[in-house]
Amino acid sequence: MKPQYEDFYSNRAQKMRASEIRELLKLTQKPEIISFAGGLPNPNSFPKKEIAELFSEVVTKHGDQALQYGTTEGLPLLRELIADRVNSQGISATKENILITGGSQQGLDLVSKILFDPGDHIICGEPSYLGGLNSFRAFEARMHTVPVGDEGMDIDMLEAKLEQLHDQKIKVKFIYVIPTFQNPAGVTMPLEKRKRLLELASAYDTLVVEDNPYSELRFEGKDVPNIKTMDEEGRVIYMATFSKTLSPGFRLAYIVAPEALLRKLCIAKQSVDLCSTTVTQYVAAEFFQRDMLDKHIKKIIKMYKEKRDLMLKALDKYFPKEATYTRPEGGMFCWVTLPDKIDTKAMFPKAIEAKIAYITGTAFYANGGGNNTMRLNFTHAGNDQIEEGIKRLAKVIRDQL
Amino acid sequence: MKPQYEDFYSNRAQKMRASEIRELLKLTQKPEIISFAGGLPNPNSFPKKEIAELFSEVVTKHGDQALQYGTTEGLPLLRELIADRVNSQGISATKENILITGGSQQGLDLVSKILFDPGDHIICGEPSYLGGLNSFRAFEARMHTVPVGDEGMDIDMLEAKLEQLHDQKIKVKFIYVIPTFQNPAGVTMPLEKRKRLLELASAYDTLVVEDNPYSELRFEGKDVPNIKTMDEEGRVIYMATFSKTLSPGFRLAYIVAPEALLRKLCIAKQSVDLCSTTVTQYVAAEFFQRDMLDKHIKKIIKMYKEKRDLMLKALDKYFPKEATYTRPEGGMFCWVTLPDKIDTKAMFPKAIEAKIAYITGTAFYANGGGNNTMRLNFTHAGNDQIEEGIKRLAKVIRDQL
Repeated sequence: MKPQYEDFYSNRAQKMRASEIRELLKLTQKPEIISFAGGLPNPNSFPKKEIAELFSEVVTKHGDQALQYGTTEGLPLLRELIADRVNSQGISATKENILITGGSQQGLDLVSKILFDPGDHIICGEPSYLGGLNSFRAFEARMHTVPVGDEGMDIDMLEAKLEQLHDQKIKVKFIYVIPTFQNPAGVTMPLEKRKRLLELASAYDTLVVEDNPYSELRFEGKDVPNIKTMDEEGRVIYMATFSKTLSPGFRLAYIVAPEALLRKLCIAKQSVDLCSTTVTQYVAAEFFQRDMLDKHIKKIIKMYKEKRDLMLKALDKYFPKEATYTRPEGGMFCWVTLPDKIDTKAMFPKAIEAKIAYITGTAFYANGGGNNTMRLNFTHAGNDQIEEGIKRLAKVIRDQL
Repeated sequence: MKPQYEDFYSNRAQKMRASEIRELLKLTQKPEIISFAGGLPNPNSFPKKEIAELFSEVVTKHGDQALQYGTTEGLPLLRELIADRVNSQGISATKENILITGGSQQGLDLVSKILFDPGDHIICGEPSYLGGLNSFRAFEARMHTVPVGDEGMDIDMLEAKLEQLHDQKIKVKFIYVIPTFQNPAGVTMPLEKRKRLLELASAYDTLVVEDNPYSELRFEGKDVPNIKTMDEEGRVIYMATFSKTLSPGFRLAYIVAPEALLRKLCIAKQSVDLCSTTVTQYVAAEFFQRDMLDKHIKKIIKMYKEKRDLMLKALDKYFPKEATYTRPEGGMFCWVTLPDKIDTKAMFPKAIEAKIAYITGTAFYANGGGNNTMRLNFTHAGNDQIEEGIKRLAKVIRDQL
């Protein structure tokens, strides 16, 4: 007798569905399609020569440790280097506040694991990073949303939401926020709003998960201090990653958190994967230590700024005036809002026919909505493809109007 | 106001405690201590030269892909090579049955995630791999135990346990078993018992998680077919790893499972870490493809057999006759049972004084017990340390008797 797997799945697994996006992305992998869909760094940005040399050196010199199991917290040297770096960005932290994770995605998984029982409550932006929503969903959290505008999460509406949940005696475990070059919207929250967000977290006694994959990829404008820099009460769990500045294939990111939370996250990580990949931690530490990281980030910024400029120029030139879009000062994404009557999901097959791909905005809405929106990635496509791609997309949209 | 973190933790996190073992292991890291405690491969077994060259080659030739995000399932080439390998071992599988994981620990985490709601039931051996128990605990499973003897899990007692739970109308999600060179006991389940275990799984309609990190490290005796080779109904989720045959620092292992289960595990993995480390997957695939793996495993076997022989010889020579211990035909561990009156936890500080370390057996008991047992790892210590270490340990034990 074959087992009926459905009888074995947990409640969370019963609800897990193959991601629509993943299915769409499969369609976009044909070479003739210009894709603004994925969230991938440009492979030309990878410092291949330097990394090849460092791997060889690290394995030869430190192979006994670099190929062995490592501590769950992560390589001490790398944690020290990260502590120095975040200190220089205004975040008060020592090595003891730092946990190396298998990408920020694992950070989101671990945070969900230590904080959520089924039905627990969280507030996140609408739209918000799809992978974050998936992690929260996998631990059966109930997601309350606050609209994201040109200045990030709407703080007045956040306050109203917190007040409303407070009146209902609902405990909010945390506010999930990507304040800089938000995924998917590309927008940045100004300092004053960051301050207010943290004040609200304190007033309503909740935590903040600040997800910051992009702030180091700023093309123009002035850095805005991370929320974590103002965290005097220990309310902010901060996440950043090497995926966008070095290599996503290393699967390395880090959490900065108050020690008590960090210890809990570390215990959770023990049962999740024992430790992150040791050998890539060694290479990342060397890259870091030899001052190669900042130089390299400058190169990426130059490369991506050019691509963003090309995309904005093409959008200005070809898109119908009924379409609006964000003008990100950094990061990887533009966010397009079309007239209400256009459903970007229904339009997707036509886009594929026209050999152009995007991500439908609904994917980033925790509780549905955003049917007339789409996310455009500008970092992965070749420079010569960007104008042509936007031109094709504009035609598909005009045909719908 | 500082947040009270305890008010935020999930039920599972409330119960998470820093591992006693980890605290003990910290004591064992002083250079003067001979440690049989950790479960580490010997760093002399790492093929450093070959790996250094492969990293350099792979990043130079395939850097665009090897440093990029990969698919959640894992590198297609590596999955094909694994399918070929397990086919040659009698397991019927294609690439579609294979998921690459961040070590088998992640496999155990993913399986727990898709199968356990809080309070769900599982049967495991007593003693059983600590990291497995931690994964099951983290998803709040209730663990029922069956004693492990010289031939692995006692199958009659397994049947009795299944019957008893069936009578109580309790659904058992799976039986967790490490049939070959079991961790921690070093024992191997004979073929007939493997067959019966699978028949029982079918009769009582449950699944089997077969964790197999060690079977390729057989020093003598005849291979025993994996339970998965007999799995006609699709009841067995099989796990194996590169941690013991190539490098634990790669964080690479794999699950072989029926396609429906594999798809669910893959969706779960998306929200856990998106994908496993890409660059180490490329290196592992090259190592594999160039027929370096089997040659290398032969070297490891030679190295570890010598160490096992040294340990058994020393145990025979120095240990008091009241102590019994297993004689593993492969793997990494011996399991020692002392007279009931000796508590290996209470004895541990005396062992550290005598500059010798082991793991207390209680850690491997899901529901307490095993106070008079200990696990000895024979793969990590230097050959010259093994006799001296056992001599020291024997003296500590004799002082207790």
